[in-house]
Amino acid sequence: MNYKSHFESALDKVRREGRYRVFADLARQAGAFPAAHHRDPAGVREVTVWCSNDYLGMGQHPDVLAAATEAVQTYGAGAGGTRNISGTTHLHVLLEAELASLHDKDQALVMSSGFVANEAAISTIAQLLPDCLILSDAYNHASMIAGVRHSGCEKQIFRHNDVAHLEQLLRAQPRERAKLIVFESVYSMDGDFGPIAEIVELAKRYNAMTFLDEVHAVGMYGAHGAGVAERDGLMAEIDVIQGTLAKAFGCMGGYIAADGAIIDAVRSHAPGFIFTSSLAPAVVGAALASVQYLKQASALRERHQERAACLKRRLHAAGLPVMPSPSHIVPLLVGEPRRCKEASDMLMAQYGIYIQPINYPTVQRGTERLRITPTPLHDDAVMDRLVEALGEVWSHLEIRLAA
Amino acid sequence: MNYKSHFESALDKVRREGRYRVFADLARQAGAFPAAHHRDPAGVREVTVWCSNDYLGMGQHPDVLAAATEAVQTYGAGAGGTRNISGTTHLHVLLEAELASLHDKDQALVMSSGFVANEAAISTIAQLLPDCLILSDAYNHASMIAGVRHSGCEKQIFRHNDVAHLEQLLRAQPRERAKLIVFESVYSMDGDFGPIAEIVELAKRYNAMTFLDEVHAVGMYGAHGAGVAERDGLMAEIDVIQGTLAKAFGCMGGYIAADGAIIDAVRSHAPGFIFTSSLAPAVVGAALASVQYLKQASALRERHQERAACLKRRLHAAGLPVMPSPSHIVPLLVGEPRRCKEASDMLMAQYGIYIQPINYPTVQRGTERLRITPTPLHDDAVMDRLVEALGEVWSHLEIRLAA
Ligand SMILES: Cc1ncc(COP(=O)(O)O)c(C=O)c1O
Ligand SMILES: Cc1ncc(COP(=O)(O)O)c(C=O)c1O
Repeated sequence: MNYKSHFESALDKVRREGRYRVFADLARQAGAFPAAHHRDPAGVREVTVWCSNDYLGMGQHPDVLAAATEAVQTYGAGAGGTRNISGTTHLHVLLEAELASLHDKDQALVMSSGFVANEAAISTIAQLLPDCLILSDAYNHASMIAGVRHSGCEKQIFRHNDVAHLEQLLRAQPRERAKLIVFESVYSMDGDFGPIAEIVELAKRYNAMTFLDEVHAVGMYGAHGAGVAERDGLMAEIDVIQGTLAKAFGCMGGYIAADGAIIDAVRSHAPGFIFTSSLAPAVVGAALASVQYLKQASALRERHQERAACLKRRLHAAGLPVMPSPSHIVPLLVGEPRRCKEASDMLMAQYGIYIQPINYPTVQRGTERLRITPTPLHDDAVMDRLVEALGEVWSHLEIRLAA
Repeated sequence: MNYKSHFESALDKVRREGRYRVFADLARQAGAFPAAHHRDPAGVREVTVWCSNDYLGMGQHPDVLAAATEAVQTYGAGAGGTRNISGTTHLHVLLEAELASLHDKDQALVMSSGFVANEAAISTIAQLLPDCLILSDAYNHASMIAGVRHSGCEKQIFRHNDVAHLEQLLRAQPRERAKLIVFESVYSMDGDFGPIAEIVELAKRYNAMTFLDEVHAVGMYGAHGAGVAERDGLMAEIDVIQGTLAKAFGCMGGYIAADGAIIDAVRSHAPGFIFTSSLAPAVVGAALASVQYLKQASALRERHQERAACLKRRLHAAGLPVMPSPSHIVPLLVGEPRRCKEASDMLMAQYGIYIQPINYPTVQRGTERLRITPTPLHDDAVMDRLVEALGEVWSHLEIRLAA
């Protein structure tokens, strides 16, 4: 057994498929976002970031930075333990109360990341129910898939956003069987919304539980930034709402909010929650400030939507292949991994514009794209430069324009 | 299907077994560790923390706090993306280089936590090898068990630290079969060391790979704090070294260090690494400062060992049932979950001493204990008070003394 050869051949395969990833070495500049410093062998250079998930620029908000700094100075760098063994800081208690209130649920539970929150909560909830069947949207995020897999429960995949298919699967099951429907409110790579109202209705009709990932919606939708379920008046109908602190809230960490018995059961059983050091005070303090700020930041949310709509309009006008997206996410189709990387490289090298190529396995093969995320801080001037640069890159690389 | 009743009955079972967990609401005081403020319905009160995994007090070290603060002010609160999509900050690049150098390996890869590092790396490495057999120590941490399970590979459990048993299992396998031995250098609940030299020798003889969790050793053992493998001159013989930034380094996050092909393969394939936002700059900056500081802090490591040895000596002298531990961890046997919680509650309420009870599933039933972690900052005076309080609690609750 030559171990090394197996790792090398796995990497060769990734390279052959044109999807070997080179991470861009960035130094964000608090206060100057979306500007950042990009470092490569040629040196350091200022670029405009167009692919961050710090959707509202909260990662540099003065209140958030002040809260992070104060938490470091007051409580220290790390929490010093797992949640159970000396690692529950008072900030954790406050943040969980704030998140429960945001989603109008009994309780919330904070975890290391949105990934861990999905993995730990889905697998634990399903395991605690006898013979649970999980019904999972075909486009669900890798972290939800991990939760489904690790539950060891039976699963059925329904076609993306296809409520007729979901109903067909539900109808085939005995009413008394435990069923958990897991889906997202905003699918991050296409930017489309999940049919929350229809799924809630089916869940009631067929007596199923619902688990909704609002990772790409919290902070950005609803009167208080609680997500699409808040916007649509459906929060109370969802059993478990999952979110992240790392995207619109600009920090890191993830959470679930739900009825007290569900939260307490996950808290008491999930290995991914129990057996790991808790989030650092700086992160928890910053997240708390961010959630509180965004509760009353409707103007920022409106400006965010306006920026996204404006960019889509301009890209359309330039004949560029914007994929249809009703949300704040603006995907531009390339359709081939090497070309996608070339477009990204050219934008960086010649225009100082950073948009990471999105290739398999993040999206399906043949749908490789540039995923653009305008924020309230991307003004008309940087948008002009972006649209012009994309036009030139598309023409230079002869990438297909809009149909 | 009454969903709620299933969560409630799972919780009832936990309560009936006396292992329902109540998290202590703590506010650590940077600069005053091991003192912290404990909050409960009766109010806020200063306590001495004796169960933190901030083993060396680095969570309050001025260099570490300064680095965290500077990172927040310079780069912002969050990284803003996954490692691949705008979330690789320059601090990540520096920290990974520092960790690779610490362990004298080609490369290192930082993840959200030590839990995620174990889960993601073990499962991915085993999956990339054809028909891999995982040989796993019976006392391995929950995160390693998660990695083993999620790999989907065949596994065999060897009796804890029993190299004869491990050899028997290895001998029964064809030489050409891929084998991965996963084990720890310090088992955190008993404080015993893994037999690294013997396992390395077996791995060479039977052509197996080795994966070593040094979570409870990094920062604390070896001339530069690289762990027990460094202390024993065995770092080069271990294929993958895994560690955390959340314990002796005082921050949060986890990592692996290994040959470049292994790191690159994990980086390119592990869902738990790829599909999650990267660590916040504050945490990465703080961890970098802490690793750098501890590289040359042998006196602090000596003081740590002296404190642990001193506490064990005093507890022995007082007739208290210290479990045999050659490391910095000092477990005190109670042997029953309710009594264990009572002892902990009494220490907190009557003596202002915080030691979390450790019950199943963290340790096996019948071995419930108080796990004490003296740090270089626990001076003789607090130690006197601890030993006295424990004597009184043991006598009041009629807990078994040392045999
Ligand atoms: C839909 C979805 N769920 C969960 C996650 C994980 O959240 P986090 O980045 O906080 O781990 C992500 C992205 O990272 C995501 O896109
Ligand atoms: C042996 C061992 N490995 C891994 C971990 C996980 O590390 P982290 O707390 O960084 O998730 C822990 C404890 O939390 C542990 O005890």
